Amino acid sequence: MKKVYSLVNITKAKDQEAVQSICIKQIRLTEEKQEFNKRPTKTGRRSLSRSISQSSTDSSACSESSEDESSPREKVQKTSRGLSDFCIKNIKQAEFGRREIEIAQQDMPALMLLRKRTGGEKPLTGAKVVGCTHITAQTAVLIETLSALGAQCRWAACNIFSTQNAVAAALVEGGISIYAWRGESEDDFWWCIDKCVCADAWQPNMILDDGGDLTHWIYKKYPSLFKRIKGIVEESVTGVYRLYQLSKAGRLCGPAMNVNDSVTKQKFDNLYCCKESILDGLKRTTDVMFGGKQVVVCGYGEVGKGCCAALKALGAIVYVTEVDPICALQACMDGFRVVKLSEMVQQVDMVITCTGNKNVVGREHLNRMKNGCIVCNMGHSNTEIDLTSLRTAELRWERVRPQVDHVIWPDGKRVILLAEGRLLNLSCSTVPSFVLSITATTQALALIELYNAPDGRYKQDVYLLPKKMDEYVASLHLPAFDAHLTELTDDQAKYLGISKHGPFKPNYYRY
Amino acid sequence: MKKVYSLVNITKAKDQEAVQSICIKQIRLTEEKQEFNKRPTKTGRRSLSRSISQSSTDSSACSESSEDESSPREKVQKTSRGLSDFCIKNIKQAEFGRREIEIAQQDMPALMLLRKRTGGEKPLTGAKVVGCTHITAQTAVLIETLSALGAQCRWAACNIFSTQNAVAAALVEGGISIYAWRGESEDDFWWCIDKCVCADAWQPNMILDDGGDLTHWIYKKYPSLFKRIKGIVEESVTGVYRLYQLSKAGRLCGPAMNVNDSVTKQKFDNLYCCKESILDGLKRTTDVMFGGKQVVVCGYGEVGKGCCAALKALGAIVYVTEVDPICALQACMDGFRVVKLSEMVQQVDMVITCTGNKNVVGREHLNRMKNGCIVCNMGHSNTEIDLTSLRTAELRWERVRPQVDHVIWPDGKRVILLAEGRLLNLSCSTVPSFVLSITATTQALALIELYNAPDGRYKQDVYLLPKKMDEYVASLHLPAFDAHLTELTDDQAKYLGISKHGPFKPNYYRY
Amino acid sequence: MKKVYSLVNITKAKDQEAVQSICIKQIRLTEEKQEFNKRPTKTGRRSLSRSISQSSTDSSACSESSEDESSPREKVQKTSRGLSDFCIKNIKQAEFGRREIEIAQQDMPALMLLRKRTGGEKPLTGAKVVGCTHITAQTAVLIETLSALGAQCRWAACNIFSTQNAVAAALVEGGISIYAWRGESEDDFWWCIDKCVCADAWQPNMILDDGGDLTHWIYKKYPSLFKRIKGIVEESVTGVYRLYQLSKAGRLCGPAMNVNDSVTKQKFDNLYCCKESILDGLKRTTDVMFGGKQVVVCGYGEVGKGCCAALKALGAIVYVTEVDPICALQACMDGFRVVKLSEMVQQVDMVITCTGNKNVVGREHLNRMKNGCIVCNMGHSNTEIDLTSLRTAELRWERVRPQVDHVIWPDGKRVILLAEGRLLNLSCSTVPSFVLSITATTQALALIELYNAPDGRYKQDVYLLPKKMDEYVASLHLPAFDAHLTELTDDQAKYLGISKHGPFKPNYYRY
Amino acid sequence: MKKVYSLVNITKAKDQEAVQSICIKQIRLTEEKQEFNKRPTKTGRRSLSRSISQSSTDSSACSESSEDESSPREKVQKTSRGLSDFCIKNIKQAEFGRREIEIAQQDMPALMLLRKRTGGEKPLTGAKVVGCTHITAQTAVLIETLSALGAQCRWAACNIFSTQNAVAAALVEGGISIYAWRGESEDDFWWCIDKCVCADAWQPNMILDDGGDLTHWIYKKYPSLFKRIKGIVEESVTGVYRLYQLSKAGRLCGPAMNVNDSVTKQKFDNLYCCKESILDGLKRTTDVMFGGKQVVVCGYGEVGKGCCAALKALGAIVYVTEVDPICALQACMDGFRVVKLSEMVQQVDMVITCTGNKNVVGREHLNRMKNGCIVCNMGHSNTEIDLTSLRTAELRWERVRPQVDHVIWPDGKRVILLAEGRLLNLSCSTVPSFVLSITATTQALALIELYNAPDGRYKQDVYLLPKKMDEYVASLHLPAFDAHLTELTDDQAKYLGISKHGPFKPNYYRY
Repeated sequence: MKKVYSLVNITKAKDQEAVQSICIKQIRLTEEKQEFNKRPTKTGRRSLSRSISQSSTDSSACSESSEDESSPREKVQKTSRGLSDFCIKNIKQAEFGRREIEIAQQDMPALMLLRKRTGGEKPLTGAKVVGCTHITAQTAVLIETLSALGAQCRWAACNIFSTQNAVAAALVEGGISIYAWRGESEDDFWWCIDKCVCADAWQPNMILDDGGDLTHWIYKKYPSLFKRIKGIVEESVTGVYRLYQLSKAGRLCGPAMNVNDSVTKQKFDNLYCCKESILDGLKRTTDVMFGGKQVVVCGYGEVGKGCCAALKALGAIVYVTEVDPICALQACMDGFRVVKLSEMVQQVDMVITCTGNKNVVGREHLNRMKNGCIVCNMGHSNTEIDLTSLRTAELRWERVRPQVDHVIWPDGKRVILLAEGRLLNLSCSTVPSFVLSITATTQALALIELYNAPDGRYKQDVYLLPKKMDEYVASLHLPAFDAHLTELTDDQAKYLGISKHGPFKPNYYRY
Repeated sequence: MKKVYSLVNITKAKDQEAVQSICIKQIRLTEEKQEFNKRPTKTGRRSLSRSISQSSTDSSACSESSEDESSPREKVQKTSRGLSDFCIKNIKQAEFGRREIEIAQQDMPALMLLRKRTGGEKPLTGAKVVGCTHITAQTAVLIETLSALGAQCRWAACNIFSTQNAVAAALVEGGISIYAWRGESEDDFWWCIDKCVCADAWQPNMILDDGGDLTHWIYKKYPSLFKRIKGIVEESVTGVYRLYQLSKAGRLCGPAMNVNDSVTKQKFDNLYCCKESILDGLKRTTDVMFGGKQVVVCGYGEVGKGCCAALKALGAIVYVTEVDPICALQACMDGFRVVKLSEMVQQVDMVITCTGNKNVVGREHLNRMKNGCIVCNMGHSNTEIDLTSLRTAELRWERVRPQVDHVIWPDGKRVILLAEGRLLNLSCSTVPSFVLSITATTQALALIELYNAPDGRYKQDVYLLPKKMDEYVASLHLPAFDAHLTELTDDQAKYLGISKHGPFKPNYYRY
Repeated sequence: MKKVYSLVNITKAKDQEAVQSICIKQIRLTEEKQEFNKRPTKTGRRSLSRSISQSSTDSSACSESSEDESSPREKVQKTSRGLSDFCIKNIKQAEFGRREIEIAQQDMPALMLLRKRTGGEKPLTGAKVVGCTHITAQTAVLIETLSALGAQCRWAACNIFSTQNAVAAALVEGGISIYAWRGESEDDFWWCIDKCVCADAWQPNMILDDGGDLTHWIYKKYPSLFKRIKGIVEESVTGVYRLYQLSKAGRLCGPAMNVNDSVTKQKFDNLYCCKESILDGLKRTTDVMFGGKQVVVCGYGEVGKGCCAALKALGAIVYVTEVDPICALQACMDGFRVVKLSEMVQQVDMVITCTGNKNVVGREHLNRMKNGCIVCNMGHSNTEIDLTSLRTAELRWERVRPQVDHVIWPDGKRVILLAEGRLLNLSCSTVPSFVLSITATTQALALIELYNAPDGRYKQDVYLLPKKMDEYVASLHLPAFDAHLTELTDDQAKYLGISKHGPFKPNYYRY
Repeated sequence: MKKVYSLVNITKAKDQEAVQSICIKQIRLTEEKQEFNKRPTKTGRRSLSRSISQSSTDSSACSESSEDESSPREKVQKTSRGLSDFCIKNIKQAEFGRREIEIAQQDMPALMLLRKRTGGEKPLTGAKVVGCTHITAQTAVLIETLSALGAQCRWAACNIFSTQNAVAAALVEGGISIYAWRGESEDDFWWCIDKCVCADAWQPNMILDDGGDLTHWIYKKYPSLFKRIKGIVEESVTGVYRLYQLSKAGRLCGPAMNVNDSVTKQKFDNLYCCKESILDGLKRTTDVMFGGKQVVVCGYGEVGKGCCAALKALGAIVYVTEVDPICALQACMDGFRVVKLSEMVQQVDMVITCTGNKNVVGREHLNRMKNGCIVCNMGHSNTEIDLTSLRTAELRWERVRPQVDHVIWPDGKRVILLAEGRLLNLSCSTVPSFVLSITATTQALALIELYNAPDGRYKQDVYLLPKKMDEYVASLHLPAFDAHLTELTDDQAKYLGISKHGPFKPNYYRY
C-alpha cells in the first residue's frame, strides 16, 4: 500500500463539511463569472497577471510586438535538447523568460523553501499534474516547484491574453510541456487544453485548475479519465462554484480542494494587495496628488478597508458607503464618515468602488460629479460603475492616456474614468509577486496533501484547505520578513488545549 | 396561539447548529473561568465595570466609604412609593444613581432607540426576566429598557464587588426588585440570587445570565421551574461553556442564546475596546511618554491588534510575538517586526501580554528586563505573567501607587508591574459605555427573539445570535455616528442573491 | 583671569541679535501673562507641574491634607544634620520626597548624564544661583544637578500653589536652602524670594527665573546686587518679555538667556507634549470613546498639530479651523478639512481650542452645540473659550466630577466644559518628566554657558540659546531612546561647509 | 508718478535684511549647483519637470520620436495668425500642447484665481518680462497668467532637455515668443536666450530666472540693459546664490526676489512632494511590496520626514540615520529607531538617501547589503550614493528596466540601484502640478510686487518673499481643498497685536 506522505496533519473532515455547506452560498458568484469568464470575447479579458506581464514587456529585450503573426500551431519548434512536445509562440525567447522567472523567485520565498524542505524526499513522485492557469513568471515558479517535488506537469493557459510568451519558452526549455501563447483564439484555447490532457503514454492523475475549464473539459470529454483523478485543486470563485455543483449532483469522482477561501490567500488577495496597489494605480494613470483630496470609497469589506487605509495614510479625506451595518460600524470606529454616495458625490475628488455589486455608481451620480472627478473600480468586476449609462450621444469620450478616458458633458465638465471601470489594480498597477506567492504555495500544498492523503481522509467532495496547511503557507512566508515565531511550551499547549504545532485557532476564528 | 413578535427574521436554524458545533471547542476556557469566577475569594475579583464604578465613586456626592457597616440584610428600607421587595445598601442614594444612569444613557443610544422603535407594542409583555449581571449604570439602562418593553424584572449581582450601590438604589426607586450590594459575602451572593428567583406570585420565564451561576442555581434547586423557562441568554465565555455542557448532556430544557460570540460584540470587546484603553491604562498608572518607546506586544489577535495600532499611532516602536504563523504574517504586513520575547526583552521599555496563554512572561524574561521596564497584561486573565516566580525572597515589592508595584532586584533594578498582572484596562482605565451598549443591546434583542420566536424555531439547544440580529445591533448604533447606510435596490439585491434587508454576509465571513 | 569653561562653542553673537530683535514681537504675550501671573488671586492659578504633583499626592504615603494648618514661617525645623536655613511645610516628608525625585530622575537622563560628563571638573564652582521656579520632583533634579556641578543654590517657588512639599523637604534634607510651600499667601511669596536673595555671607551671582518675579525683585530692591549678576536664565514667555523691555530701556546690567525659544524646548512643550496629553486629558475627565467622534480643533500651530495627529490616530474625524492660510494649507495636505467653527459646531462631539487667541469659542457657538458636546482648551490660557458668556442666569452649571462641569441650557441640553477652559493637559493630565527634562537641561546649560563665557562674548542683552547648545540638549536625550548618531567624515563636513560637531543647520532652519 | 499697485502690503524691509544675511550661508550649495547645472553634458541632465513631460509624451497623440531631425533654427514656421518671432520644434503640435496646458490648469487653481481676482486691473501692464525656465505645461500656465495680467513675455528654456515641444507650440500659437526645444545644443541654449533678450523694439524690464543663466547673460552682455531692470525673480538655490554674490559685490542694479526660500514653496517642494512621490517612484521602478519591508532612510530633514511618513503608513519598518541630534530626537519621538547605517545595512530591504550630503552610502555599505536590496536617492543630487566605488571591474552592471540597474557582485548578489543615484522622484515618478503651482504663483506675485512697489521699498539687494505674500500664495490654493479660513475679529486682532489680514506669524516662526 502506498506510503502516506504528509507535511501537515489534517483537521477532522467533519468540520470541513460543516463549513463547506455554508460556502456554497457564495454571494459574489454572478460578477465573478463575468470577470473570470474564460471564453474569449471581442472586448478582451483581464487576467490577474496582466499588468505584471505588461511590465515585463515594457522592459523586454525581445519585443513581443515585432513577432511574426503566424499561428504557433503551424510552426515546428524544438528545444535545445530536441524536445518538441509543446506549442508556444517562440522558443527563442527562453533566455529572457528565464530572467523573469529568476526575478519572480526572489519574491516567492515559500516555494523555494518548499523545494529545499522536502529535500531528498519527493512528495509528488508519480504525480501527473495537468494544469490550466495564467502562464506568468509567478506560475512558472510554481510549475517548476511541482517538478522539483517529483511531479510530471503539462500546462495550458486559462486566459487567452495573459500568457507571457517568454516565460512559456523558458518553461519549455526547462522540460515542461506547455501549450499556450498570448492571443489564442477560442479554438486554440480548447485545443491547447486537449493537448495537455491527452499525451502519448501519459495520463494525468491530478488537476490544478483556475476557473474550472480544464476540469469541465475532462469531465465532459474524458469521463473515464476523470474517474481516476486523485485530486483537483481549484483557486477561483467560479471554478469552486462549479465544483460544488458537481459535488451536489453527485458527479465528483474524487476529492477537490477549494484553495480560494483559505484565510491567508483571502487576506493577501484583498486587504493587503489592495492597500499596496490603490495608490499605485491612481498615480500611474493620473499623477494625482493625494494630500487633502476628498474620496468616497464604496464598500468597506477587505478591499475597501485596504483602499481606505492607504488613502487616509497619504492624507486623503475618505468617506465610506456601506449597505451592511456591521461593516459600516467598523468604518465609523476606524475614523471614516459613513455617507450615502448621493450626499457627497458633488463635492468629492474621487469615487472608488469596492462592493462586488452592480451599478453602485450610476448616471445620476456621474451627472452630479464635479469637473475633474476621478472614478474607478477596485471591486470584483466591471459592473460597479454603470458604463452603459455613459455611452450616450450627448457625452463625448476622449482617451487621454492608456486606461484613462475623459467623459465630457455638454457643458464641458470632464469625469475621469479609469480602466473603463475594470479592476484598477489589475489594469493599471502591478500585483506583487509576494502576493501571488501565497496563492501558488497554497496550490502546491493542496496538491501534495491530496496526492499523499491516506485512503478515506477525503471523499468525493469539495474541501477547504485544512487550517494547519493554511498556517503552514503563512509560516513559509515568514522568513522573508526575518520574522521569528514563538513556540508553545508543552505546558502552554496543554493549558490552551491545542497542539504545539497547530492548528492554533478554531475554524470560525475571524483573524 | 401566541402572536409571533419578531423584530428581525431568523436565518435557518440549520446553519446555526453547524457553527455551534464548532464553537464548543472554545480555546480560552480555562483562564476565563478563573477570571470571571463568581465565588468570592480573599484576593477579590475584577469585573468588567469595576473601573467605571470607581470613576463614578470618585465624583460621588454621596461618599460610599462613609456608609454604615451593617449588612443590608438586616436593614428595613422602603422606596418613596412604599415598596420593600428589594435588598440593597442604601435607598437614599437613588438620586445620585439616577444621574449616573442618565449619563450612561447618552452613550447607549441603541437601547434608547429600541425603547422608541418598538413604540406602543411591548414585545416583552408577559416576560418575567430574572437577571444576574454586574449592576452598574450601564446594566441599569438595559434593565429599564426591558421594563419599558413590557418585562417584569428581578435582578441579582453576578459579582460580589462590582455593584454600584447608588445605581441599585435608583433602580429600586424606579420599581425594580434588586438584591445586590457591593461587598457581599458568598452566603449573601447565593441568598440574593435565591430571593430573585423565588418571589411571591412571580415565577421567571426568562433568564439573563452572566457567568452561569443563576442558571446553575435554578437548574439545581428549582428543576421544575427550569423546565418552564422559555429562554436563556448568556454573555460570558464561562456561562456559554456551561450551557453547551448542559446541552450535550441533554439537560437543557429550552433554547439558550450565546451572545458572547456575536460579531459586533467580539469586535468591540476586543479590538476597539483595547485600542481605546491601552494608552489610557498606561498613562493613568505610570504617566509614561509613548514617543520613541520600544514595546513588545505578546500576541497579535484582536486584542493585540488593538494595542499595537494605538501604541504605534502615538509614536512607540512596537514588536510582536506570536505562535500562530497566520497572525504573525498579518503583523509583518501591518509593519511590526515579529520577534521572540527573549530576543528583545533586554532592550524594551514595556512588555504587554495579549495572548490568552499562561506564563508568557516568565522569570527568565523578567530577570533580563532593563531598569524601569513596564510589564502589564491586556489578555484574558492574570496568568500571562508568571507572578509566582516574582514572589520570592530575593525580590522586594514596593507599592508606589494603586495598581502599580515596583519589583526590585537585589542590584536595585526595578520592574514596574501594573495591576498585579490582571487586565490593565479593566483595572486601571475605563470601558466606554458605548462598548457596553453593544453587549446590552445584543442581550435585549436575544431576549426578545427567544420570547417571541414561533414554536419550533428553537429547540433545547444553544444558539448563536442570528446574523441578521447582529446586523440589527450594529444598525442601532450607527445614528450615534450620524452614519447613513445605503440601501440596496431590488435589482442589486437580486444580483447579489441576498435580501435587501440582510443578512448581508455568509456566516463564515471574517469582517 | 578666570579659566574659560565651555561645553560647546557659541555661534556668532551677531546672528543672535538679528533673531532677538524679531523675537521681541512675541504674539502671545497678553494671555501668557494672564496664565502665568504669579500674584495670587482668589481663583487660584495653574502651574506646569500641578497635575504631576497631584498624581504624587494620590499615591502619597504622607497625606498632605492631614497636615497642620500652622504657617511654616512660625515653625522651627531642622534637618537631620542640624541645618535650619530654610522654610518649608514639613521636613519629615523628606523620605517620600526623595522617592519622587528618584522616580523623576529615571526620565531625566540628560541631567544625570550631565553630572557624569562634566565629571571631576565642576563648571559651576563658585556660582551662587538664586532660583525661582515651580518646586517639583523635576526641578529638584535640576537643582541637585546644579549643586553637583559646583553651584551653591537657594530656591523659592514661582507659584503659590505648585510646590510639592515633600520634594521641598527632600531638597532641604539634601542641603539646599528652600523657601517654599504649597499655599503661600502673597506676602509669603515675596518673603520667600527675599530670604533666598539675602542670606548671611552669600550673594547670588546667577539668576534662574521662571516668570521674572525674582529678577524684578532684585532689580527693584537690590540694584547694586543686580549689577554684579553674571547671568540671568529665564524660561517663560512673560519673563522673557520683561527682560527684552529691560534691555530696550538699557537697564539690563548683564547678559540674559532666553531659553523659552530654543528649538528643542518649543517642539517638546508644544507638539510632542500635546500629542501625548490630549487623549489622556480627555479620557481622565470624560472616559470618552475616540473612535468615530467628530472633533473640531481650533488652530493648527504646533499645539493643534499635536492634538490633531493624536485624535486622528485613535479614529476620530478631525476638522481644523485656522486664520493663517499657511497653517490652513498644511492642515489640508495633512488630511484635515479646514472649516469655520460656525459651519460644523452643531454636528461635532468635541471642540478643542489651540489658538492662543481669545473668544474663539463664543456663546453663539455654544448655543448651537449638540447635547453632550465636550469643550476644552489646549491653547495658552483660559481666554479661548468665552466663559463669561456662560455665566448667565438662564444657564445652570453642574459640577459632575473634578474639572468637569455640565453647563445646562433651559431645554436640558448639556455642554461638557473641562477645567473651566484652562489648559486641559496641565489641569487634567500629566506632563511627562521627559518633556520637563528638555527644559531643565536647557536651563542648566544656559547657566554653565553664561557663567563660563569669556569676557566679551555676551553683552548686556538678551540672547537666544546658541544652536550648538540646543543640539547638545537634544544629544543628551538620545541615549534614552538608544539612538545612535552618525558622525560626519572630514570630507563630508567640508563638502557641507560645516563643522563635524555642529551646529548643523542655519539659524532660520525650520525643523 | 507711477500709480502704486499692491496686492498685499509688505513687511518692513528691515526684517527682511536680517533674515537674508542669514540666508547667504546656504549649506546645500555645492550639490545643487551640480544637479541643476545648466550647461549641457554628455550624460544629460534632470529637470524638475522631466517626468511630467515624459508622462505627457507617453500619452502623446503626436509622437515626438517620429519628428524630423532638422534643427529648428533652420526651419521657417508661422503661427496661424502669421507670427514668426519664435523658434520651436514644430508649430503643428500646438493643439496637443493646448490640451496639456488645459489639464495642468485644473491643478493650478491659484494662477487661474489670480487672473480673475486682479480682474479689470492689469497689474503688469507695461511689464516686459524675459523668462528662462523649464518650458512645460505648468510654466505655460504661469506665462499665460503673466500675459493675462498685462505683461509682454519672451521665454527661453533653462534646460536643454526639459522643453515640452507641444507646449512650446501652444504658447507660440497663443502669441508668446518662445525660443526653446527639447535637445538644444549648448550653442542653441545661449542663442535662444539671446533671442529672447534682444528683440526689435522690445527691451525687458523684468527678469524671471531659474538657475541664473539668463541674469548672468544680461549682466555680462548687456550691462546697460541690466541697469534698467526693475526687478529679478529667481527660484533656484544656485541662482539665488549667484544673486547674493552679485549683491555682495555691489553689482546688483535693482532688487531681486529670492522665492526659493518662501515657507510655502519649501514645504511643498520637500515634505509634501516627497511624501507623495517616494512610494510612486519605488513602485514604478521595482513593483516592490511595502508591507513589512525594512528600510533605512538616511536623513530626517523635510525630505526624510516625508519619505518616512509615507513608508511607515504603508507598513514598512523604517530606521533613520542622522548627524543632527535635534532631527534625530524628532525621529525618535515620531517613532523611528535612529541607527547608524553600518549597524542595519546587512538586514534591510531598502536604503534611501535624503541628506544633501555626499557618499552617505559607500562601497563598504554596499558590500554588506543583502541580495535584492534596493538603493535610491531622494536627496539633492547624485552624490549621496558613492557610484564611483561601484564602477569597478569585479562588479557587473545589468540594466533590467529603464532607470533600474542590477549591480552584481562576484558571488551573484544583486543590489538594485535606481536612477543611477539621481533624484528618484524626478527621474521615476511625477511631480504633481499642484506642487508646481505653489512655485509658479510665488513667482507671479513676486513679479507683481517688484513691478509695482513704490520707490524706496526695495533697494539693490536680494529679498525674501514678504511673509504676507507667502500667506497670500497659500490662500490662493485653499479653494482647491474647499477650505474655509476663519477671519479674526477686530477685537481678536487687537488682542494678538497683529493685523486682521496678516502677516499672522513672526518671521522666525517654524511652521
